[in-house]
Amino acid sequence: MDSHFYKYIEPIIKPRVYWKGEIMERKLDHSSVIPLYHQLKELLKESIEKDGVKPGDKMPSENELCTQFNISRNTAKKAIEDLVQEGVLKRIKGKGTFIAKPKLEQSLTGFYSFSKVMQESGLESKDIMIDLKVVKPTTKVMRILQLHRNDKVIELKRLRCANNEPIILETSYIPERLVQGISTKDIQNSSLYDVMEKTFGIMVAKAKEVFEPILIQEYESKYLEVKEGYPALLLERIAFDTSETPVEFCHSVVRGDRCRFYTELI
Amino acid sequence: MDSHFYKYIEPIIKPRVYWKGEIMERKLDHSSVIPLYHQLKELLKESIEKDGVKPGDKMPSENELCTQFNISRNTAKKAIEDLVQEGVLKRIKGKGTFIAKPKLEQSLTGFYSFSKVMQESGLESKDIMIDLKVVKPTTKVMRILQLHRNDKVIELKRLRCANNEPIILETSYIPERLVQGISTKDIQNSSLYDVMEKTFGIMVAKAKEVFEPILIQEYESKYLEVKEGYPALLLERIAFDTSETPVEFCHSVVRGDRCRFYTELI
Repeated sequence: MDSHFYKYIEPIIKPRVYWKGEIMERKLDHSSVIPLYHQLKELLKESIEKDGVKPGDKMPSENELCTQFNISRNTAKKAIEDLVQEGVLKRIKGKGTFIAKPKLEQSLTGFYSFSKVMQESGLESKDIMIDLKVVKPTTKVMRILQLHRNDKVIELKRLRCANNEPIILETSYIPERLVQGISTKDIQNSSLYDVMEKTFGIMVAKAKEVFEPILIQEYESKYLEVKEGYPALLLERIAFDTSETPVEFCHSVVRGDRCRFYTELI
Repeated sequence: MDSHFYKYIEPIIKPRVYWKGEIMERKLDHSSVIPLYHQLKELLKESIEKDGVKPGDKMPSENELCTQFNISRNTAKKAIEDLVQEGVLKRIKGKGTFIAKPKLEQSLTGFYSFSKVMQESGLESKDIMIDLKVVKPTTKVMRILQLHRNDKVIELKRLRCANNEPIILETSYIPERLVQGISTKDIQNSSLYDVMEKTFGIMVAKAKEVFEPILIQEYESKYLEVKEGYPALLLERIAFDTSETPVEFCHSVVRGDRCRFYTELI
C-alpha cells in the first residue's frame, strides 16, 4: 500500500506578504495579444508560487483587482472563475475568495481502497451511503461483468469524503449472486473489498482502470458540491478475483479541483 | 515499451442497424425526475453499446430526435453537445453529427515517447513545430528544474498529431546549458529524448508524472481544434537523468474527447 496515495501536499508556510509584496507593483500589458484575463491568471499563479501563501489566505476582491490592474469587472471575474475551476482558489459564499487547500494526491501505481488509504494517511474519511439496491444491469455493465440475460447486479452508490469534503461519487456494480443479502450495515464500518472477502469469500486480486477527463454533470454537482461544467476525472475500474473473473465494475467521478494523480515511470 | 500505449480500440463492426433498430421504438419517460436530456444521452449510449455502430455512422438530426422523442430543440441540443464533449459523437461542419472514432488509449504503466509509440502502433504521427526559443524560466519551472537566478531554458512547443488529428499540445522546458544550440532541425525527424541522448549525451532514466483534469482554454482550443471549455487532461512530467538531476519539465494538454488512459493494478 502506497501511503502517499491520498495525501495533502505539505503547504509551505510563509508570512502573509502576498498582497503587500511585489505582486501589487506589477502591471498587465494592455497592448499584448495575450488576453488580459490570461495575463492576470498567470500573474496570480506566479505570485502564489513565488511569494508563498497559505491555504485559507484571503484574495483581494474583484473590485480591488479591477482598480489595481485597470481591468474590467468581466476580466477579473473570468480570471478568478478559471482559478476556482482549476482548484487554485476557493469561493466561500458570503465570505469571499480564498487560496484553496492543496489538491489530494493519488498514486496510480499501487492498488488501493479509498477507506484504507484515508485511514493510513491520517485524513478523516467518511462515506455517505446514497443507495444500495438490486437492479437490472445496463448492456455495458452486463458485458463488463460477463453476465447472462437474467442476472441482476447490486448497485452501490456512495459519496466518499475527506475531512467532511465530498471528493468522489462512486457507483459499484457487483453480480448479485456473489454478494446475496449484502446490506448497508455490512459496508458501514468496513471497506467494500474487506466485506467481499470476509463475508462472501471473494478476493479482489487484480484490477484494470481506465480514466478520462469529463465535465461535472448536474446530477453529480449536487453531491460533489461543485458547479456543473467543472473539470472532473471519470475513473472506471474492473476488479477481478484470483481466477480472473470480473467481480466488480466501479464508476467513480473524482473532483478535479480537489484531486490530482501521479505516477512514476522508470 | 508497451505497444498498447497509443492504440485504437478495435471497433466492433456490426451491420448499421442503429437507427432502424429498437432504439427508435423506445420512449423517454416524460414524468420522471431524471432530466430528459440525460435520459436521451443514456438511451443513445446504451443503444450504441447494444446495437453496435461504426465510427463514421451518421446520427439522426436534432429535428429527427425532437420528433421521435417528443422533446424540445434545446433538450436534443444539450444531449448531443454533451456526447460531443465526451467524445462519443463528432460534429463535422456542414455535414452533421457522426459516431466518433474510439478514443486513443494510453497506458500509464510504461515509459514512453509520443513519436516512438505512434510508430510502433502503426498510426501516422506528425509533429507540428510551434515554437523553439530561449526564455527566462517562470518561478515554477525554475524550482522544478533546480535552476539558478540567471539560468535560461529552451522552450519547445509542439502539436502532436495522430493521423493528422491534433491530440496533444506539448511544451517542454530544458535547461539551456544542457542542449546549447539545439535547433528545430534536430527534432524534425527524431524524438526529443533521442536527440537529447545522441547529440547532447543526456539520458532520460526516470520521470514523475502528475495529471489532472482541466478545461480547454481559448489559446489551446485553436491548436487542438476543440471548443474552449471542453474536458482535457493536463499532464506534467519531470524527467530525470541517470544521476537523478531534472533535465526536462514537460507540460502537455491532452484532448479528453480523443484520449483515455489506463493502468493495471496488481
